[in-house]
Amino acid sequence: MSPDADLSRWGWGHADREPTDAERRETKARVETMLGFPERPLLPMPDDDLDLPDPRVDPPFHFCTTDPEVRARHTYGKGYPDLVRGFYGEYDPAPDAVARPEEASQIPDLLLWASDERVAVVPFGGGTSVVGGVECHGPGYAGVVSLDTRELDRVLDVDHTSRAARVQAGITGPDLNAQLAEEGLQLRHYPQSYEFSTFGGWVATRAGGHFATRYTHIDDFVESVRAETPVGPLETRRLPASGAGPDPNRFLLGSEGAFGVITEGWVRVQPRPEHRSKATVRFDDFWDGVEATREVVQARHSPANCRLLGPYEAMLNELADDGSSLLLLGFESLDGPTDEQLERALAICGDHGGEWDDPTHEGPDTATGGEDGGGADDEGDAADRSDAAGEWRNSFFEAPYRFNTLVSVGVLVDTFETAVTWDRFPDLHETVRRRVTEAMREECGAGFLSCRFTHVYPDGPAPYYTLLAPADPGNEVEQWRRIKQTASDTLDAFGATSTHHHAVGRVHREHYHREIPDSYLDALRSMKRTLDPEGIMNPGALL
Amino acid sequence: MSPDADLSRWGWGHADREPTDAERRETKARVETMLGFPERPLLPMPDDDLDLPDPRVDPPFHFCTTDPEVRARHTYGKGYPDLVRGFYGEYDPAPDAVARPEEASQIPDLLLWASDERVAVVPFGGGTSVVGGVECHGPGYAGVVSLDTRELDRVLDVDHTSRAARVQAGITGPDLNAQLAEEGLQLRHYPQSYEFSTFGGWVATRAGGHFATRYTHIDDFVESVRAETPVGPLETRRLPASGAGPDPNRFLLGSEGAFGVITEGWVRVQPRPEHRSKATVRFDDFWDGVEATREVVQARHSPANCRLLGPYEAMLNELADDGSSLLLLGFESLDGPTDEQLERALAICGDHGGEWDDPTHEGPDTATGGEDGGGADDEGDAADRSDAAGEWRNSFFEAPYRFNTLVSVGVLVDTFETAVTWDRFPDLHETVRRRVTEAMREECGAGFLSCRFTHVYPDGPAPYYTLLAPADPGNEVEQWRRIKQTASDTLDAFGATSTHHHAVGRVHREHYHREIPDSYLDALRSMKRTLDPEGIMNPGALL
Repeated sequence: MSPDADLSRWGWGHADREPTDAERRETKARVETMLGFPERPLLPMPDDDLDLPDPRVDPPFHFCTTDPEVRARHTYGKGYPDLVRGFYGEYDPAPDAVARPEEASQIPDLLLWASDERVAVVPFGGGTSVVGGVECHGPGYAGVVSLDTRELDRVLDVDHTSRAARVQAGITGPDLNAQLAEEGLQLRHYPQSYEFSTFGGWVATRAGGHFATRYTHIDDFVESVRAETPVGPLETRRLPASGAGPDPNRFLLGSEGAFGVITEGWVRVQPRPEHRSKATVRFDDFWDGVEATREVVQARHSPANCRLLGPYEAMLNELADDGSSLLLLGFESLDGPTDEQLERALAICGDHGGEWDDPTHEGPDTATGGEDGGGADDEGDAADRSDAAGEWRNSFFEAPYRFNTLVSVGVLVDTFETAVTWDRFPDLHETVRRRVTEAMREECGAGFLSCRFTHVYPDGPAPYYTLLAPADPGNEVEQWRRIKQTASDTLDAFGATSTHHHAVGRVHREHYHREIPDSYLDALRSMKRTLDPEGIMNPGALL
Repeated sequence: MSPDADLSRWGWGHADREPTDAERRETKARVETMLGFPERPLLPMPDDDLDLPDPRVDPPFHFCTTDPEVRARHTYGKGYPDLVRGFYGEYDPAPDAVARPEEASQIPDLLLWASDERVAVVPFGGGTSVVGGVECHGPGYAGVVSLDTRELDRVLDVDHTSRAARVQAGITGPDLNAQLAEEGLQLRHYPQSYEFSTFGGWVATRAGGHFATRYTHIDDFVESVRAETPVGPLETRRLPASGAGPDPNRFLLGSEGAFGVITEGWVRVQPRPEHRSKATVRFDDFWDGVEATREVVQARHSPANCRLLGPYEAMLNELADDGSSLLLLGFESLDGPTDEQLERALAICGDHGGEWDDPTHEGPDTATGGEDGGGADDEGDAADRSDAAGEWRNSFFEAPYRFNTLVSVGVLVDTFETAVTWDRFPDLHETVRRRVTEAMREECGAGFLSCRFTHVYPDGPAPYYTLLAPADPGNEVEQWRRIKQTASDTLDAFGATSTHHHAVGRVHREHYHREIPDSYLDALRSMKRTLDPEGIMNPGALL
């Protein structure tokens, strides 16, 4: 039996969270009334009698398997085309085998064997990629092995003096924070995939956390990394900072398994913040919210939360239904109240017509929660989920589960994201809205597009778009591909990035190659030839 | 005549600031009484009748010259062995020619010619390297051309909405801020070389600014960069952030001219901070100061200034002479008072036995200075230089001038720096003190070593050491080399970085290669072969 038997084979998350009939009925109704297009009930999912291609290779290691169910569970990530194909039971691109080493020391032999046999190796953490990061068709290879790191799931060392911890690559968010909580520490990195994704995956994909500013990107938490490449280990020195040459950590950050597999690293950790302040600001006009957000971040305030929800996004998350935009604003601090910081940011919002109810402030005396251990404690404690920010927090981690239900009632659902400087954002946003909506209408006859800012910087926002459209059953992947192409082409036309935190994988590869300088792509490829001479590491992703 | 005729040929800075007889006399006395070893008056400097090797090549471009004085001025950086050799008039490693293009568009032809002729090209900004970054002996090459970027000295564009500016690589700190001041903006990046060093040099060497935390490294200011490589331009996209693959900016940051020459970039700029608070905290025991500093930064306070001066450092800068250590603590803000932040940090200092006089607070109503234009406005305004932080600020930018005088009275003077995690700092520090002091005694018969923190991070400090010893005239470079080797070996033994912000150049190359993983060095070399197939770019530096 697969060690992942408690997880949904095709959808996001736990198997017992697959959509119930009641959820499907409720979602159907919402699709009709809110989105204005009819649902398309899909055929029931096939049973577990999966029809996978025969494995082409059988790696001679005890920690490898060719079990069909295990292979099926390592075929896809969790993007829309992944869910749809899993839903229909299409597993043609399944890897030939899955390796699940118990120790990192077993990996070099696997890579040696794979190099000799010209077998592609695809590092696999939580399998939560939405950009085709773990789906490897491997033409020209003798086979494909998915390298699952999740047995490497321990905190190996904690340095309380420097506030850093040495962690293995396959540890998931909740396991990491549970082990750190025993030491009174946290990582405080909360990507939306937090429940399932792994430290190694975060590094490989330059994951972005939930916080809007400052300590949110995994890039900034990494003190050192160790990867196994086909030519040997690449382990950086543990340093708080360095000015010595191009940063080797920044080379592994975003490497997406193309040069090697990350096995462990040292990360910067911290105690639980003692003070929090938050408020929800309402703007009649989205663009007033944009200006207020820009001014807050350009005043160099550093809110932990600074999430601007456009009117459709506020509606989609059931936080507002009157066309207003919402700015979820929150500050946190390890030492000293955050009231004043919030008041300053609210004053800026007020200058731009924002309105808010009484802000909430918490300190060590008012907080009701204790150590939150494995929970994602990003907005406040458990007692405080009744306001918009608390609703948002639930909504944030629940969103991927809602995709399951939407897929099961024939809704094409996807998100795409970028970052762009403030001067270009208005034109970009209007053009994205127009072109992507047009593309949905053309492909699907209707469509819904909403926008929020997930992160903000002094020089620009990271807008994040959610799209929903009525799918044509059996034709979903092609429909999705054409809409996605329109979205990526539009971002590229404005010089925005192909991805702010979803990574490149295979889905964004074409536009990533347009984004980076040709000579830099050539240089990365020459690095790959040096570290991975046989080209076995995750071929087709990134490079 | 050289366009640098107003600068000292051998020493730091302006020619009219070369040491006077009065300064020499005063320094001699201080060396005797404070350092406890006799000065060694050196022979007078030679006149300008320089004896340079004949140029081996004469590039066929109107912007190139083989003028001996110009070549002499592009031979060295400003490290101790550079000053000594310049002082004695030793110019054997002079480049054969100096190129000073008026436009970046002239550079590709130069690189093409150099690749064809196998002539080494050494990018040259302010020439302030202290690590041999611009000194190229070029064995195996037909010649060496120093590529001086300082005609590329303009701000090309300002985006007020995104608060970013497009600047040419050869602009110096004061010119950059003067041009930005016309737009009401500043970069606020103040390396000690600020007066002469250039934007391109900052990027190429990953320069560290004067501020202790947050927005201080040029790495964090860079939105995009353009470099000319021998195979063509490498220009990154202008983005506030991206998660698309290994960051191309981070590849050019720290590239030290080994892949190409940086010609321009977009940087993040900001208005002048309106609020400042500062205080000087005295600790009887250095280690109490270390603990307080660690706790301040681990509480995630982000002081602009957090400079811990050890007892000898406080003495050297004439800020204390009773063996106490000083923590110069300052906060600044664009929006809202900083009083509370300072008070919180001071409370932590008090817990560790620190004592301070009344803190100073400034706001928009109390600040006396206007826009400071070209000045380095890092600590406060001009009216406020009478306290320790103000003294420090003067001392900081004056320090390189003091090197001139020390060299002229036969004192071996150098600084070295690193970064290390807090857990390793005590052992590292004690061992550095012991071994480097021993090395100075062995080489020179005596020696003085002081320490300060230039930057601090939640996981570790960046200690910065100053050493002074009586030189043996005529033998200084060898003496320096052996002491430097001891220092670098000791840092390496503790796993500290070979350089926190001085860069690698040629001086740190050996230890840089020990510091980074072998496979990463191989990978960087393969990148170099791709971008610089003939290996003409700054050979011997970095790689």
